[in-house]
Amino acid sequence: MANPVLPSTGVLSPLGLDSVRLAPGFWGDRVALNREVTIGHCLEWDEREGWIPNFRGERPRRGREFSDSEVYKLLEAMAWAGHPALPALAETVAQAQEGDGYLNTRWSGSRYTDLEWGHELYCYGHLIQAGVARLRTHGEDTLTRVATRAADHVCRRFMEGTETCGHPEIEMALVELYRATGAERYLEMARRFVERRGLPALAEIPFGRAYYQDDLPVRQAQVFRGHAVRALYLASGVVDVAIETGDEELLKTVEAQWERTIARRTHLTGGMGSRHADESFGEDYELPPDRAYNETCASIASIMLAHRLLLATGDVRYADLTERTLYNMLATGLALDGRSFFYANPLQVRVPAVPLDGVNHAPEGGLRSPWFDVSCCPHNIARTLASLPAYVATATADGIQIHHPTPAEIRHGRLAVRVETGYPWDGAVTVRVLEGGMGRIALRVPAWAAGARLARGGAVREVAPGYASADGPWRAGDELRLELPMTPRWTYPDRRIDALRGSAAVERGPLVYCAESVADEPPLGDLTARVAPPVEHHVDGVVELEVAAALGGGEPRSWPYGAAPDGRPSGADAGLRLVPYHRWGNRGPATMRVWLPIG
Amino acid sequence: MANPVLPSTGVLSPLGLDSVRLAPGFWGDRVALNREVTIGHCLEWDEREGWIPNFRGERPRRGREFSDSEVYKLLEAMAWAGHPALPALAETVAQAQEGDGYLNTRWSGSRYTDLEWGHELYCYGHLIQAGVARLRTHGEDTLTRVATRAADHVCRRFMEGTETCGHPEIEMALVELYRATGAERYLEMARRFVERRGLPALAEIPFGRAYYQDDLPVRQAQVFRGHAVRALYLASGVVDVAIETGDEELLKTVEAQWERTIARRTHLTGGMGSRHADESFGEDYELPPDRAYNETCASIASIMLAHRLLLATGDVRYADLTERTLYNMLATGLALDGRSFFYANPLQVRVPAVPLDGVNHAPEGGLRSPWFDVSCCPHNIARTLASLPAYVATATADGIQIHHPTPAEIRHGRLAVRVETGYPWDGAVTVRVLEGGMGRIALRVPAWAAGARLARGGAVREVAPGYASADGPWRAGDELRLELPMTPRWTYPDRRIDALRGSAAVERGPLVYCAESVADEPPLGDLTARVAPPVEHHVDGVVELEVAAALGGGEPRSWPYGAAPDGRPSGADAGLRLVPYHRWGNRGPATMRVWLPIG
Repeated sequence: MANPVLPSTGVLSPLGLDSVRLAPGFWGDRVALNREVTIGHCLEWDEREGWIPNFRGERPRRGREFSDSEVYKLLEAMAWAGHPALPALAETVAQAQEGDGYLNTRWSGSRYTDLEWGHELYCYGHLIQAGVARLRTHGEDTLTRVATRAADHVCRRFMEGTETCGHPEIEMALVELYRATGAERYLEMARRFVERRGLPALAEIPFGRAYYQDDLPVRQAQVFRGHAVRALYLASGVVDVAIETGDEELLKTVEAQWERTIARRTHLTGGMGSRHADESFGEDYELPPDRAYNETCASIASIMLAHRLLLATGDVRYADLTERTLYNMLATGLALDGRSFFYANPLQVRVPAVPLDGVNHAPEGGLRSPWFDVSCCPHNIARTLASLPAYVATATADGIQIHHPTPAEIRHGRLAVRVETGYPWDGAVTVRVLEGGMGRIALRVPAWAAGARLARGGAVREVAPGYASADGPWRAGDELRLELPMTPRWTYPDRRIDALRGSAAVERGPLVYCAESVADEPPLGDLTARVAPPVEHHVDGVVELEVAAALGGGEPRSWPYGAAPDGRPSGADAGLRLVPYHRWGNRGPATMRVWLPIG
Repeated sequence: MANPVLPSTGVLSPLGLDSVRLAPGFWGDRVALNREVTIGHCLEWDEREGWIPNFRGERPRRGREFSDSEVYKLLEAMAWAGHPALPALAETVAQAQEGDGYLNTRWSGSRYTDLEWGHELYCYGHLIQAGVARLRTHGEDTLTRVATRAADHVCRRFMEGTETCGHPEIEMALVELYRATGAERYLEMARRFVERRGLPALAEIPFGRAYYQDDLPVRQAQVFRGHAVRALYLASGVVDVAIETGDEELLKTVEAQWERTIARRTHLTGGMGSRHADESFGEDYELPPDRAYNETCASIASIMLAHRLLLATGDVRYADLTERTLYNMLATGLALDGRSFFYANPLQVRVPAVPLDGVNHAPEGGLRSPWFDVSCCPHNIARTLASLPAYVATATADGIQIHHPTPAEIRHGRLAVRVETGYPWDGAVTVRVLEGGMGRIALRVPAWAAGARLARGGAVREVAPGYASADGPWRAGDELRLELPMTPRWTYPDRRIDALRGSAAVERGPLVYCAESVADEPPLGDLTARVAPPVEHHVDGVVELEVAAALGGGEPRSWPYGAAPDGRPSGADAGLRLVPYHRWGNRGPATMRVWLPIG
């Protein structure tokens, strides 16, 4: 079956990517854009920057020590998308593999001399994921052989001993290769990598061992910590190991870590990783809007983890977080033209960015960039969109579950349905039966959607957040209709989030909104909004919102601390337009804020 | 005259360090502690870590590329303090100097191949400042010869061309050497370094050229930006160049940059530099309490700059900021035992630090550390405390100005006075005339001290913030008494400081206060304070304060954003003890917050 994650057991079962065919709509359009534009964009840049030529032995080698992994992520994207350039690129990669399976364009000649920072096992992880994608979409070929030879090399080299890699990733890749091939050594190797971590397995570094989750054995940790992508990739691999080894306790441990992280270390957009300095989570309730790092890759890792936990448990909370992250992080990461990307995703930008033509050398910026010195985010977006149908729906013995309403045709057994919806702009979701069959059809009702209603034929009933379902048998032409209330809502932060005190945000459906001010006109730096129902404006198929806010503009004080509490800005209330957060930054340099001071 | 900064012109003139003799008291105690403990502590560690042995040619060389500068800062401290170990250490340094004056233990053999990051000119700057200190306290010797040979080498190598150093520092050192020797080439070299910057003179780097103030010529910049220590060292050198070249416009430029920085980029403690990632200022109103970086060295650089501007203009605002920074940053940087140091100085710590025994590899931490891989802060504290009398008082043709009340004897011409005070705990400052003479005695009245009173004999009058003065002639036994109101006060942030919305801090006199909770018991993470007059408690000579606050303690919500505004914590109001910020972290791992949520 073609799907990146195929656990051998779990409450929910994945469907093959070809069983969920997206039609034009919010996600279908992005998946098509990725296939037609973004993958080619990455291929061009990987060639231009030398990351592909490195495999041909071109010297001097170019790119960072982990640039091989970008080419592998691209190969994975190509595999899911059925891209015609895959075979040639796989042949190029194969040229660099050594006789014993070792493959790395940076460390050949000084193998495994810097496990802390060398990323060799991390790179293999992405190679193996690409190989699994190829195996499941096409069958054996050069890429799958290169990947399995590399995996076998890893097992020979690392099965005994105490070593692991500074960047988790190999764990989930090996488990998936086990699932795809049945070879138990891959699972055992993954299990050992998981258990070694935190004994410790790696050297002390200035960021501290928590940076690469080597401060504590995974079974002892209570929360995700350190480098966000590393933490979430590791947790994904841990879930995979737990599922395949039947380790309930290990699964529960990750669930508890996830719960604590969601409760205290996650931004409203689903973004994770507050700190720039080490791309790390930071501490509980350290959730600054302006310096939120929220790397796009961390959000993708969070989606990967939540999806695994959803499959394992069937708990709707995981799908709720995935929706939040898909609409407010993944969709934000990619420009509307498919050719530029956000790396960091702050919730407030005070100064319009300076446009960059070419490579952005810093991961931050208030404008999407066509490329970065570290271009994990573009490739990660590409492989995620190429496999997006994996997240839309699942199956059980007794039916199908539609987690994310978006125009699509879904088949399972003899049942085939078409989902019709203008979501996320419109809350009506129609499931039309194309080919009849047995089974229950379940639709997720997000936590924010209190008051939702489900209609079947003439019968309408209110359905609570969770999964609303209706049982078969189904005949062609039957219709099931979910109505999600899309009234804009004000959202307030927990008072323990110091950085958000005295402010509120506006959400509508799954979307977080923000004020965006092109060229900072009007300026957003001194603003107080009135909490009142936002007014909807429909603009080119997008729902924008309007709230009332007073703007300041007075001269700064000579010392910004004083004996009297500060009042509201001097300006009169005026309309302030809010746009969906995922659309911001597409109109040129701008200021932006999700959290609006209120009063 | 023995003083680190001796401009040839300016509204106020420095006094020699021996004209301001500190007696036991807040600063006198710290100056003695520095002389007796901290300087020796640094000497031991510089030897142990290899930074002194590097000069003896011991290999492999140890320490960062700029470690030579730490030894030079220590030499400067020793010069001001008259430390007996100076001559031997100077001989050690001299061993490494090459025939043409070049001196660097890291880059010898690959001179000036990395001006962006190599710090060679930065190291010379500190060597030259040490040389000037020795010249002014002792006269010519090995150290002064090494320093002038290095300076001459710099002039030969860099007078023509467009190059400069990635870390400003050489500019103010060269001007001071010009002041000490009269050799105009040093001034000209400094002037050229200032004017070259921002043309640009250095390469683009991922942090951007603003990191080292090479994004704009200094005359075009409107605010301090980029790496805080670099920005403030540069500005100090620019003031020095402006003064010695009579460039009024250049001086006004720095004054305007300073004003904007104080109004928008300075923490309540006087700390500067909000960001960890690049130790930079960040943007206007980006002043997070928890992730405030506020490097101790940046505060020292800020004191150096404000002092130069005070000498040039006589404007009390510069002395006000210096006081704020002395009491809340410099005094905070050093432990009460003189043997450990803060590098970063956040205004909120959520999790008690883990005690470290030995070198702290990271610059952050909620506990002072005995040493760091980068130990600029300990040495900078040592040289600043060793020359602290330079900041206390100045002179003009018509009298003396006492900027910082602390027990001391001050002499100028035939006038000698003794300052008696329990400041900052007590607001009474008595200036007792020891030897009579002519001249006006001026005492600074801080901006926060509205309602201050000045008494001479039986005459008492209210004096406004600024300088309060009384004219001579003075006879031995005469007394001038300033009464500063020391009522604790609540201070509120400008509403543009997003990170501080809904909170307030307590100050008393020059001191910022904070809640400190050893082992986080009681926990400070969920707290709402009542704004009411704080109660004073006198504890072992220290004034502590008490406010009423409700503490929370409820379980976290599963998702920290909700449909209703958050209320106050559930706990009843109870007394919350506040301690002076500079004293926090001396009682073991603790949580801390300066800004208290109010409501």
